[in-house]
Amino acid sequence: MPLPADIGLRDGRHVMEVPFRALLLPANGLPGHRVGPALERFQMRLAERTGNEWRSDGNAEEVKLFIRWERTGRLVLGEDETYSLTITPARVEVQATTDLGILRGLSTLYQCLAFDGGEWYFPALVVKDQPRFPWRGLLLDVCRHWMPRDVVLRQLEGMELVKMNVLHLHLTEDQGFRVESKIFPELHRSGSNGQFFTQEDVRYIIEEADKRGIRVIPEFDLPGHATSWFVSHPELASAPGPYAIEKRFGVIDPTFDPTREEVYLFLDRFLGEMAALFPDAYMHIGGDENNGKQWAANLAIQAFMKERGLKDAHDLQAYFNGRLYEILTRHGKRMIGWDEIAEGALPQDVTIQSWRGKEGLISAARAGRDVVLSNGWYIDLCQPTAYHYANDPLPDDIGLSPIERKRVLGGEATMWSELVNARNVDTRIWPRTAAIAERLWSPAHVKDVQDLFLRLEQVTGQLENVGLRHRSAQMELLRLFAGTEEVDALKRYVDLLSPVQGYQRHSIRPGGYSTATPLTRLVDAAVPDPLAANRFEQIVDEYLRTRDRTKLDATLDSWGAAVGELLGRTEITSRMSVAEQQQLLAFSELVTRLGPGRSDPNTRPPSLDDAALLAQARPKEAEVVLAVLPAIERLLKAREP
Amino acid sequence: MPLPADIGLRDGRHVMEVPFRALLLPANGLPGHRVGPALERFQMRLAERTGNEWRSDGNAEEVKLFIRWERTGRLVLGEDETYSLTITPARVEVQATTDLGILRGLSTLYQCLAFDGGEWYFPALVVKDQPRFPWRGLLLDVCRHWMPRDVVLRQLEGMELVKMNVLHLHLTEDQGFRVESKIFPELHRSGSNGQFFTQEDVRYIIEEADKRGIRVIPEFDLPGHATSWFVSHPELASAPGPYAIEKRFGVIDPTFDPTREEVYLFLDRFLGEMAALFPDAYMHIGGDENNGKQWAANLAIQAFMKERGLKDAHDLQAYFNGRLYEILTRHGKRMIGWDEIAEGALPQDVTIQSWRGKEGLISAARAGRDVVLSNGWYIDLCQPTAYHYANDPLPDDIGLSPIERKRVLGGEATMWSELVNARNVDTRIWPRTAAIAERLWSPAHVKDVQDLFLRLEQVTGQLENVGLRHRSAQMELLRLFAGTEEVDALKRYVDLLSPVQGYQRHSIRPGGYSTATPLTRLVDAAVPDPLAANRFEQIVDEYLRTRDRTKLDATLDSWGAAVGELLGRTEITSRMSVAEQQQLLAFSELVTRLGPGRSDPNTRPPSLDDAALLAQARPKEAEVVLAVLPAIERLLKAREP
Repeated sequence: MPLPADIGLRDGRHVMEVPFRALLLPANGLPGHRVGPALERFQMRLAERTGNEWRSDGNAEEVKLFIRWERTGRLVLGEDETYSLTITPARVEVQATTDLGILRGLSTLYQCLAFDGGEWYFPALVVKDQPRFPWRGLLLDVCRHWMPRDVVLRQLEGMELVKMNVLHLHLTEDQGFRVESKIFPELHRSGSNGQFFTQEDVRYIIEEADKRGIRVIPEFDLPGHATSWFVSHPELASAPGPYAIEKRFGVIDPTFDPTREEVYLFLDRFLGEMAALFPDAYMHIGGDENNGKQWAANLAIQAFMKERGLKDAHDLQAYFNGRLYEILTRHGKRMIGWDEIAEGALPQDVTIQSWRGKEGLISAARAGRDVVLSNGWYIDLCQPTAYHYANDPLPDDIGLSPIERKRVLGGEATMWSELVNARNVDTRIWPRTAAIAERLWSPAHVKDVQDLFLRLEQVTGQLENVGLRHRSAQMELLRLFAGTEEVDALKRYVDLLSPVQGYQRHSIRPGGYSTATPLTRLVDAAVPDPLAANRFEQIVDEYLRTRDRTKLDATLDSWGAAVGELLGRTEITSRMSVAEQQQLLAFSELVTRLGPGRSDPNTRPPSLDDAALLAQARPKEAEVVLAVLPAIERLLKAREP
Repeated sequence: MPLPADIGLRDGRHVMEVPFRALLLPANGLPGHRVGPALERFQMRLAERTGNEWRSDGNAEEVKLFIRWERTGRLVLGEDETYSLTITPARVEVQATTDLGILRGLSTLYQCLAFDGGEWYFPALVVKDQPRFPWRGLLLDVCRHWMPRDVVLRQLEGMELVKMNVLHLHLTEDQGFRVESKIFPELHRSGSNGQFFTQEDVRYIIEEADKRGIRVIPEFDLPGHATSWFVSHPELASAPGPYAIEKRFGVIDPTFDPTREEVYLFLDRFLGEMAALFPDAYMHIGGDENNGKQWAANLAIQAFMKERGLKDAHDLQAYFNGRLYEILTRHGKRMIGWDEIAEGALPQDVTIQSWRGKEGLISAARAGRDVVLSNGWYIDLCQPTAYHYANDPLPDDIGLSPIERKRVLGGEATMWSELVNARNVDTRIWPRTAAIAERLWSPAHVKDVQDLFLRLEQVTGQLENVGLRHRSAQMELLRLFAGTEEVDALKRYVDLLSPVQGYQRHSIRPGGYSTATPLTRLVDAAVPDPLAANRFEQIVDEYLRTRDRTKLDATLDSWGAAVGELLGRTEITSRMSVAEQQQLLAFSELVTRLGPGRSDPNTRPPSLDDAALLAQARPKEAEVVLAVLPAIERLLKAREP
């Protein structure tokens, strides 16, 4: 996963023998800096799964894995990532034009490793593969909640496994300025509560990303989302200040003053420093959600606008963006920004990241601009995996010409961090982002959702094995919440929950969320669209098709047992909120009637008339929904006369 | 935990209301750099457990927590760490001479937080507390297996919770040179496979340790254990080389050449650089396990010894240590080293770290030297917690005078890393090291093992809550081993296993261990002296006392169920080695006879005559032992006529 473009299974298998010796065969004799470390990672991971020592010195005849490539790839948009993988009983061969292709091939090979109870092997096959889109990214917001270096580094392991190639770091926000400036150290010192990447951290992240064929694109969000800059530099803002690091979330007023030359001198120096620190050709300037309030309230700014004939905040922001464009161009960077920057008259070579809807993507491509899709991939909103998976940047009927279609470079999953922190962020990214990675890599016709889920069940374990914490973090939160190590029943229940979708949590919680709100409730341990819910959907489908109750009853019984056990654990349930308790009780009743109580004549079977019961299972205040409720409702509906 | 020196429970409780506002009251008006961040950690952790926002702006009358201290403590040996903690229904007060005392008091307060099903509260009490020993350390070997920065940082959280105050970093070894040198960058570049702390990493670790009142002592192991230095500097060794980073473990030959002045010039520059990087007054020069082979084989060295009248390798090493002593003194550092350095005629102000036995400690103290105990606290050897707990550095009968007793500064748990890596190291350190921390902090009379275990059950959860991975890492390893998320039965079985003690694993594994051996077998997931085994000990005790089988049968039944389920999971058992399978089968048979089969007249009850069965449950090749076997044997013995 992602599913290769072309895969042909053959008879037989390649039994993995120890040592599984590899030979590097770069055509020009230069192995470069990527394949060696990648092979070490790969061999150690094989060793960790099989339990055998991963390498030993010995003779060259024993080579089983041949790795051939022509040249070291450049880490730029559109570089060749094609590869072919041939597994025969006698040998394994990965071939590619560039070392980037080799990395992609090794990820595929790693996923092919299997165990049949007797031996470890790779199935014989021939794969020819290349990406559908050249820009396959993950945005990580390290600002709202701080994400230390090791959080970022482990995302790289997951990205490599699913062949993503852009890490977009959202580095400045109202809630934090997260990168060290040596020219203006007051920025990170005053703007970050001590939580920021040093330049050494940044270089280390970039180096590790490069080794995995992943570009790192920094975002400095301008002119809004900028409170943290103004803590030390209130003079750059459009209102006098003073400013403090923002603790609450949302669209906040503080905005750069686009009318003063000092602002551009300052940004020129700062962005120049960052342009040297981040080697990628692109630099992201944000540009989203400026509410214009500070501009409207500032007489000098209003006068400036009048003088220049700028009729509204859009015009003024376009002017600001134009100045930024000059600065970035001077520092050798291509500009990328959110939808809003398309509103002005910027040159065509600005790239648009489309977050507000497909229209932004279409109009940008028609306007001759490159565009990257994020709308539909806001993984912070806890929407269903199938929804993200279906979100094709280039459906056949999109109405773009062949040339315009070329401008759609790919997309990015965006992990905004208002409601996740370093502890649980992995649970919101993985394994779901693998589905987005597949949408961006695999051919458009690969879209079978049930097949996707079968493969997600595999890949979620592999993602853990390479260092991600989506499973562990959930368990840690459950044990913290429950105050005990005995959380099996709670875990089986939480497996059926999902956080409410969209932005609802902000308005549900009394007083709203801030950076000081602990993220240790059930909703923080629940994962979006849990795999167990999808498994139940399939069981219900099968039951409705066959009317064979075996699996359905077994599942309902196991839920009944888990929920029954949980209800007996008052030291845990007493920690639940009233709404959480109400939801658990309603679910328990539903399950009892559907499951264990089904053969008890005294138990009234549930029906859709049980509106009250279903409503109780959906208390908004719990901030979680029962992810299996839609399937239960289908079940109830089918039982209606 | 550690149990305070003096604790008096009072009637009532302090109900924790939100916001739980604190007031800092430093006597001199200077809050310093420790208490503010400590309070933030403390309040966020309370918030994470209770689920409530941790701080809000409001009026000062609402203050509930008063924190008073006199001055900022110096991070030096023997600095005042006393504190008092008073909890009444109306208020909570932590008082101390230094801010270090405040940190210790906040750790106690954190551990006092309780939930009764209705409310969160602190029980009313008065604590007056101070450490028994001023040196309470954890040694972390980051060389044999590399431990990245985040591994070290999270140990600091655990150390703070249990009031340890020395982090001893073992930074150079045959298998790796783990710290950046700017003067001799070839050392870390050639000696580390790219895995080392940059100086920025070191400063960050030191800063975070300082905030927690923890000193950081670097160890540069000399003259042996030094292969990694010689990869770039073979000329410093006593044999010509070339040298490569060592992959295998044990006492290896390469040793510094103590006869050449260039060696001292080099070490002077390098240790001078490190003396500036590490602010602590102490520097550790290792000094252990030099086998003398390279010296014996080098004619020039032999000639040098003859010329100087040095009669053997001990004399030569003493000469070398004397030269190191001069270098360290010149750079303003006090020397500390392992037992062996006591063999020469070094000045009295050298501190001895005693690892080979209690005699070393006694003779050092008698010789007028300060001494730190590590013998008995080699946590890499997977010995019982009770053994470590009973290891008192200063028992009444040690035979030292009052002045000599004063020289016993405390001790260190040593986490050598031949057989642990960054993934599972937490499982070998925690929660056991909390018992060692208690031995070093609490009064000597605190030594009730069963009480210790009751408190360990609590503290293990708190250690996880502050960021340690001892529970998660085990589960990750089990899922990796089993290739599935469904590892409940496996986990319940592994809870009863413990790695073989001592150095046995090295000789058991065919071919031995090296840095290339994956640590992903059952033995790597098993924890030393698991809490479940201790629980069973108590159940057996109770049964033997009361002959009431209720709890015993329930436990045996649950084991029977777990093992039965595991035996049915062939996709898991097929991954076990033959020895692991044999052990599981033998245990299953024992449990069946003792437990579920007890009322079946066809099941022969087991007896001590079942030598074969018991032997099968102890296959050396499994590298794990059934930690519950001794209790089972007691049970069997008691049933004999």
